[in-house]
Amino acid sequence: MAKQMEFWFEFASTYSYLSIMRLGDLARDRGVAVTWRPFLLGPIFADQGWSTSPFNLYPAKGDYMWRDLERRAARFGIPFRRWVPDHEVPFPQNGLKAARLALIGLDAGWGQSFCQSVYQAQFAKGADIADLDLLGRLAEQAGAPADAPALANAEANKLRLKANVEEARAKGLFGAPSFVVGDELFWGDDRLEDALDWAVG
Amino acid sequence: MAKQMEFWFEFASTYSYLSIMRLGDLARDRGVAVTWRPFLLGPIFADQGWSTSPFNLYPAKGDYMWRDLERRAARFGIPFRRWVPDHEVPFPQNGLKAARLALIGLDAGWGQSFCQSVYQAQFAKGADIADLDLLGRLAEQAGAPADAPALANAEANKLRLKANVEEARAKGLFGAPSFVVGDELFWGDDRLEDALDWAVG
Repeated sequence: MAKQMEFWFEFASTYSYLSIMRLGDLARDRGVAVTWRPFLLGPIFADQGWSTSPFNLYPAKGDYMWRDLERRAARFGIPFRRWVPDHEVPFPQNGLKAARLALIGLDAGWGQSFCQSVYQAQFAKGADIADLDLLGRLAEQAGAPADAPALANAEANKLRLKANVEEARAKGLFGAPSFVVGDELFWGDDRLEDALDWAVG
Repeated sequence: MAKQMEFWFEFASTYSYLSIMRLGDLARDRGVAVTWRPFLLGPIFADQGWSTSPFNLYPAKGDYMWRDLERRAARFGIPFRRWVPDHEVPFPQNGLKAARLALIGLDAGWGQSFCQSVYQAQFAKGADIADLDLLGRLAEQAGAPADAPALANAEANKLRLKANVEEARAKGLFGAPSFVVGDELFWGDDRLEDALDWAVG
């Protein structure tokens, strides 16, 4: 049977950025087919009574996360900076529109490249990923046709993203990135290798 | 300069158990001297408005943690079971008395063996680690003199544990296990190797 894994990611999630950049080579080396599943953490955090990221609600944990991310990114050779010269980059950003476009792109073959470029724009360049002009440019560079933004904004696609969130909730996801192999859930970029190894069996 | 790391642990902490069992060999291989620092998470969780472990407050995260722990323990060859035949083991347990005894033992040379046996009693055998008889037996088996429990219960030692909690708070610790190398904080058993590598430089 084919070795398979689902990769669940949220565009505002810092550690999802590390996985987005690391996943390709690691999965290829192990012969694991990965299905990319964008979702939104906002509704799931709201279930827990949180109105923002726990990294903002619990400052000691937030301070730690930024430093940990900086160290891990350096270790993996992934460009990262939290601060840009003229402004503080807001956190968490609104990844709704990026996620809708990603759904269209992942069906059509330009989605993975688009997702990587959105994360890089956010976490390496300090861009606002809710900016439709930016998203349109990144999609085009990834190979999207001109009607992609309209397709992303269609009601059917909005509902599809909502269904992803429901499925994530049903699978017990509570953070991102998460990896699902059969009935097994793995949470966090630091479980990426474990999840892939589980898929190999 | 000597390679040094502080290892901060809480007896109720599930992932601290993994680190307690893994730390020795990994530190020895890298030539890192490790100072063991028992502390209590209860007062630090209370700062965040939590009256119990976040694994109880957030059930999806708690369910995940137990499965993750089971998988990680199996991978490392560390005995673990959450359930014992006749009762559910409470979580989190009260590690106050164990921590006081550990402080005495770590000064006197029998502390590391004592700490490991307390974690094993809890997470491999389902024992109640607030039980003074059990703690006394484990201390004795680790080589403690007969007056160790009295020393552990002395006012000066109680204050010392409180001072550890204050120091943990001042260092930005928010969970366990945590590892401190100079000004760098690492959190979680999955950062043990990172922390030791940082100490090696």
